[in-house]
Amino acid sequence: MRLAMSLLVSVMVSVGVLAQTATLKLEPVERQMPPYIQERLNANDRVLFDKLMRVGIESAWSLVTAEGYPQNFINELTPLKPHYRMVGRARTMRYLPNRKDVRAKLYGAGPQLNYKSAEEAQPGDILVFDAGGEMRAGVSGGVTTIRFLVRGGAGMVIDGAMRDVPELEAMHIQTYMRRGHASSVSPIMMSVDYQVPVRIGSVTVVPGDILVGDTTGILVIPADIVEKVANTALEHDEQEEFQRDLLLKGESIYDVYPMNAATKKRYEEHRKLKR
Amino acid sequence: MRLAMSLLVSVMVSVGVLAQTATLKLEPVERQMPPYIQERLNANDRVLFDKLMRVGIESAWSLVTAEGYPQNFINELTPLKPHYRMVGRARTMRYLPNRKDVRAKLYGAGPQLNYKSAEEAQPGDILVFDAGGEMRAGVSGGVTTIRFLVRGGAGMVIDGAMRDVPELEAMHIQTYMRRGHASSVSPIMMSVDYQVPVRIGSVTVVPGDILVGDTTGILVIPADIVEKVANTALEHDEQEEFQRDLLLKGESIYDVYPMNAATKKRYEEHRKLKR
Amino acid sequence: MRLAMSLLVSVMVSVGVLAQTATLKLEPVERQMPPYIQERLNANDRVLFDKLMRVGIESAWSLVTAEGYPQNFINELTPLKPHYRMVGRARTMRYLPNRKDVRAKLYGAGPQLNYKSAEEAQPGDILVFDAGGEMRAGVSGGVTTIRFLVRGGAGMVIDGAMRDVPELEAMHIQTYMRRGHASSVSPIMMSVDYQVPVRIGSVTVVPGDILVGDTTGILVIPADIVEKVANTALEHDEQEEFQRDLLLKGESIYDVYPMNAATKKRYEEHRKLKR
Amino acid sequence: MRLAMSLLVSVMVSVGVLAQTATLKLEPVERQMPPYIQERLNANDRVLFDKLMRVGIESAWSLVTAEGYPQNFINELTPLKPHYRMVGRARTMRYLPNRKDVRAKLYGAGPQLNYKSAEEAQPGDILVFDAGGEMRAGVSGGVTTIRFLVRGGAGMVIDGAMRDVPELEAMHIQTYMRRGHASSVSPIMMSVDYQVPVRIGSVTVVPGDILVGDTTGILVIPADIVEKVANTALEHDEQEEFQRDLLLKGESIYDVYPMNAATKKRYEEHRKLKR
Amino acid sequence: MRLAMSLLVSVMVSVGVLAQTATLKLEPVERQMPPYIQERLNANDRVLFDKLMRVGIESAWSLVTAEGYPQNFINELTPLKPHYRMVGRARTMRYLPNRKDVRAKLYGAGPQLNYKSAEEAQPGDILVFDAGGEMRAGVSGGVTTIRFLVRGGAGMVIDGAMRDVPELEAMHIQTYMRRGHASSVSPIMMSVDYQVPVRIGSVTVVPGDILVGDTTGILVIPADIVEKVANTALEHDEQEEFQRDLLLKGESIYDVYPMNAATKKRYEEHRKLKR
Amino acid sequence: MRLAMSLLVSVMVSVGVLAQTATLKLEPVERQMPPYIQERLNANDRVLFDKLMRVGIESAWSLVTAEGYPQNFINELTPLKPHYRMVGRARTMRYLPNRKDVRAKLYGAGPQLNYKSAEEAQPGDILVFDAGGEMRAGVSGGVTTIRFLVRGGAGMVIDGAMRDVPELEAMHIQTYMRRGHASSVSPIMMSVDYQVPVRIGSVTVVPGDILVGDTTGILVIPADIVEKVANTALEHDEQEEFQRDLLLKGESIYDVYPMNAATKKRYEEHRKLKR
Repeated sequence: MRLAMSLLVSVMVSVGVLAQTATLKLEPVERQMPPYIQERLNANDRVLFDKLMRVGIESAWSLVTAEGYPQNFINELTPLKPHYRMVGRARTMRYLPNRKDVRAKLYGAGPQLNYKSAEEAQPGDILVFDAGGEMRAGVSGGVTTIRFLVRGGAGMVIDGAMRDVPELEAMHIQTYMRRGHASSVSPIMMSVDYQVPVRIGSVTVVPGDILVGDTTGILVIPADIVEKVANTALEHDEQEEFQRDLLLKGESIYDVYPMNAATKKRYEEHRKLKR
Repeated sequence: MRLAMSLLVSVMVSVGVLAQTATLKLEPVERQMPPYIQERLNANDRVLFDKLMRVGIESAWSLVTAEGYPQNFINELTPLKPHYRMVGRARTMRYLPNRKDVRAKLYGAGPQLNYKSAEEAQPGDILVFDAGGEMRAGVSGGVTTIRFLVRGGAGMVIDGAMRDVPELEAMHIQTYMRRGHASSVSPIMMSVDYQVPVRIGSVTVVPGDILVGDTTGILVIPADIVEKVANTALEHDEQEEFQRDLLLKGESIYDVYPMNAATKKRYEEHRKLKR
Repeated sequence: MRLAMSLLVSVMVSVGVLAQTATLKLEPVERQMPPYIQERLNANDRVLFDKLMRVGIESAWSLVTAEGYPQNFINELTPLKPHYRMVGRARTMRYLPNRKDVRAKLYGAGPQLNYKSAEEAQPGDILVFDAGGEMRAGVSGGVTTIRFLVRGGAGMVIDGAMRDVPELEAMHIQTYMRRGHASSVSPIMMSVDYQVPVRIGSVTVVPGDILVGDTTGILVIPADIVEKVANTALEHDEQEEFQRDLLLKGESIYDVYPMNAATKKRYEEHRKLKR
Repeated sequence: MRLAMSLLVSVMVSVGVLAQTATLKLEPVERQMPPYIQERLNANDRVLFDKLMRVGIESAWSLVTAEGYPQNFINELTPLKPHYRMVGRARTMRYLPNRKDVRAKLYGAGPQLNYKSAEEAQPGDILVFDAGGEMRAGVSGGVTTIRFLVRGGAGMVIDGAMRDVPELEAMHIQTYMRRGHASSVSPIMMSVDYQVPVRIGSVTVVPGDILVGDTTGILVIPADIVEKVANTALEHDEQEEFQRDLLLKGESIYDVYPMNAATKKRYEEHRKLKR
Repeated sequence: MRLAMSLLVSVMVSVGVLAQTATLKLEPVERQMPPYIQERLNANDRVLFDKLMRVGIESAWSLVTAEGYPQNFINELTPLKPHYRMVGRARTMRYLPNRKDVRAKLYGAGPQLNYKSAEEAQPGDILVFDAGGEMRAGVSGGVTTIRFLVRGGAGMVIDGAMRDVPELEAMHIQTYMRRGHASSVSPIMMSVDYQVPVRIGSVTVVPGDILVGDTTGILVIPADIVEKVANTALEHDEQEEFQRDLLLKGESIYDVYPMNAATKKRYEEHRKLKR
Repeated sequence: MRLAMSLLVSVMVSVGVLAQTATLKLEPVERQMPPYIQERLNANDRVLFDKLMRVGIESAWSLVTAEGYPQNFINELTPLKPHYRMVGRARTMRYLPNRKDVRAKLYGAGPQLNYKSAEEAQPGDILVFDAGGEMRAGVSGGVTTIRFLVRGGAGMVIDGAMRDVPELEAMHIQTYMRRGHASSVSPIMMSVDYQVPVRIGSVTVVPGDILVGDTTGILVIPADIVEKVANTALEHDEQEEFQRDLLLKGESIYDVYPMNAATKKRYEEHRKLKR
């Protein structure tokens, strides 16, 4: 689905015989990358992420599936903020149930991974925590996330729990998680792997994947195909917007979606006019 | 429960010795059928649905149960919009896991049922999708729902998933579902039956049932008894409003709810005065 | 985590070479006891509950755990109101599946416990209903809760379901529960025990426990240690606020959280200045 | 259902034209109270429990429900032993999540309840542990159960986990539970209440209830009505056995179950002959 | 997988230097249609079902999937009998949550569907009950199933619960279900549709489908393709048996599974010899 | 718990006044490493694994926990074989949801990991598959497991599903899993990592860990502490066996478990005599 960001779609519809005066108004969904992040992106990402802010996630899903990735949609997690589109690049971490010996080895070798990932984050990054769905301990929290925000972080996806939920809710980025928990990561969990393929819900997320999320869920787009997906989906959205307008004017869905021959012709003319 | 739509219940209460100046204010809950739908309803439905917009769902539940329907409340689904009352008439569809042979037969015989139901919807209808709780595929989405809106649709109840969740959230109707999913209905699911009894959560919904939903859940009222339920419940709500007022004034719950003899007498007087 | 209630933390950050003008703004979280409750509290509770309104739940969790209570956090229930901190004292009830013989004995001996607890509630009390997670019947509802509000009630925690959810949402207190249900408590459940230890999620709650809840979950603090926890946590929060400020200014998390020697020195100076 | 213990029901059936020689053989289900328990029962229990060993749980369920107890069947737990009927009297315990302060108080006052219940058990008792479904810690184990066995214990029902599962499987009593766990009860759980009403699955079990369990689940019979239930159910089973025989002989279910007038007459004659 | 029914695969293996005398013995799995059913089947079914008794369910699954049915495997239900292969033809029923009005209409029009299906069953039929996963009420039980047995019934698949579990366990057919329950179908459920497509787990089962089940789960084969699937799978199993033999002799899996060129050649020779 | 393998514990008990002749007989649990595996073990493992075949899992759990590993018990999986003790060394694999690009890279670099692990297995190894709990696809099956058996494999632990369940049930090793599925691993899953730390249930398993499993669950013992755990647990079991004998003789649990001073003295004497 795609709703233009700048237009208020609002029409008068008359289907009955009596005077009907109420308008059918579809509220546009506001979607833009927060300026703080946007101005830190490199030129390529700024263009790409802007497209992905506007694209229909459903159109993009069709294209990602057509490219051979039918399992790339996450809908098991809950977004903290309503009405918010998240776009960014996956930086992944893998957590496991805590064990004294493994922890001693790993934590002796370097900082815990929520620290490391916040410190090394690039503008437009999304931190992806695979905590195996564990809900009895938070894997990170507000303070570490402030460092991530300053670095230009664009979102967080946690298959598990987080501390400081009200603080996260007040931030300008989206966070997807299962639940909150006030505990520290110890003694239930420990961070194990950095920038490896991980499992979120029933999707494998690879470092560098581009994630596009809203309240429907999160689409995981392999970096190789993201340009193609973004461009083709926008074209498809343009057509869908035309179809939505016809439906709002009261035309039958059988003529419009999918388009019959006559509607297709009208659409071709509409496109010519628009250019 | 019933909260008058037009009154702001707000009282001063003093239970301590010190000066207590804070008021106990109960915010009224706004509840009205969206004008676009309302003016398309026939005369009977306009009156009936207006009553059901105001009725206490709990009072109505008691009456529906007393009529022999103790299993008619759905609370397994999540409403997309907060603070919203849905009232309308069930138009049902049954979905099953996709199968090549069954799909070929059914889809050869007519349009997919989310199309058909949107096209044939009458003002005040609620689309009811029994998708068996499946969360790996959306059964319908934004574009089809626009056609439904234009027709005067009043709500959607999906035991499964939907596409285009932000678009649905922005509409003037309520949608109850389990989760979002960006996928098309294929290849996981297919529509099978139209206007048959279906299962939503642990309730059988029959075409023509009247549904009344808010954030507590959805009450399913057989059409035969809906007038009686609406009228009797409104009477009961009138009494409950009196009881609420007494409680807000600081009276003991033991005298008021249920009413003892003295309170009953006061209520009789109150009713006479009101008329 | 702790966000000062009165300050708007908002800074200019420059990490790139190009002109970057967007500010990193953290919205403060509003947290105060509703005046109606506050002015009914006794002097001790007023001071204590005010501290707990400001304290970081995560800091407090660490201290509660350090005191020997590692299992005292509830995150299985859903709060009805976003952005809301609940503080109060547990008044507990235990419900069991309904049984004719037990019910006859108990209900002959006195009022149902949701009535009794509303009537006997003291200002700042939180009603805690252990309904074993049952979601097929509401254990209490709006009318009874009005009596509780008038008495100065500060919140409700239900391991089960409640009636009248929109009415509860409109109240000035927080309610945590699993789901709504329009039914009365009968015939599925019955109240059995009053002011005994109960199970909520995977936590034992004892009458008199102090509960502190927000959207992360609910911390259960034994009354014996609550003063110590509140005071120590506030001190810890003061340090964390300093750390947040440094991070917002762009310092590395490795220097700040935890603080290295240099940062510790700066913090000592900061504290002297503040006094 | 009821299968006679001593008879092998085995018949020749011919429904086709060709020679059919295979017999339809229903294996009888062996059901008897283990002798060790039986000879320790008092005279009344020996008679009553023997009846309940033979009764159809389904017939008994109908009668228990008709007496006003429609919620008295437990089917959420797994029996350790196949092909085994458990009959006995409930001795109940309530466990809660561990908490230092509550534990100190309770464990100072007397032994842990799995010890106490094993020591105080009477012949024919069934230990009923309400552990709230917790599966991360065993509430009791093999050693304590040996003491229970010596005392004449007849079964165990645990809404939670047990240690020493292979040892329990090898005993001559049935154990119903959710899962095994090798841990001790600490530090996750603690015993709190002895011989109080408890919740198992979605059923309230009261001390003194008579439990009858097999692989279908566990029927909970209030002591007041157990004689009546046992006697009436056995009568009903006698009729059902007659019906089974007719069905095995190839008669139509429409004539037999429920019985039409002709079949009823035959049954009356059958009963006269039997006496 | 396929294990010959008549051969005991048992070999001596030496991989170490020391004397190793233990044999690697694979117990053959006994699989045959019970004679009572077999002799009542028509000629075609007798041949077909015999093949399906021997076929590898995994080989058959691959072929069913290759034919366009990737969703046709049920693994959500529990078989009552271990070590048992079920083969037969689906006779379907759909149950819904009970509702007074719908029940009155349906039950006035004819017998409850568990009766009807038992009475009308043909030899080799499998009763398939779609009860929506409901576990609070049994949809059928032992007495009705005796009529089904006499008719030559070959199995039962219930997405829900059954009465009389020990009796069902003692029968010569397999039953798959979620749980047992001693209750009658009323007042929770009612039978609604007969011989329509239904949902079991996440699979659509159509009347006339051929079901093949063991402890791995149940493969649902559309009638149109069952001959092809059975024959091709048996061929594939023959090859797999050769591969198993090589592995048992200690050959490397890299040469054998899949077969490299040399192994393929040996297999061709092996086939020639066998004929 | 510990039950001696060679002794049949069977005693006469008299607690009543009447003649009681039934014996309290505890069936010993047979536990030995299958000879085929045993004779392939190296000398150290043969001794160690023999101890672990006899040790009480509960005693060992206490010691593992005391060494700092309180989270090392798996009870979320189902063992295929009843009455069976599994002992061996973990060889781990990690599976993720299938993705075309990752799969292409990994499968180009070497064989799928169920093949590789079967081929490289050492005598006494246990294959540990972390499939994230996925139940819609089998990660391995019968043929590959035959290669593993020939190599001396001692067990399999799958947090997911397996093909060929009846074949696995017939083998001389134990398999723990969630469910069966007839499908191949594709297209739902793919193998990703070999011999890395993995998550099974809520436990981290590291390559080389020693696993000890029965129907209670699986204890995960770090290799560093396994000798100490085995020896100390056997000592503790010796004492528990003494306690069991006293209980079987009818002594009070209060004197015996834990032992009071008098019982301790008797135990010391018993030990002296035994040596």
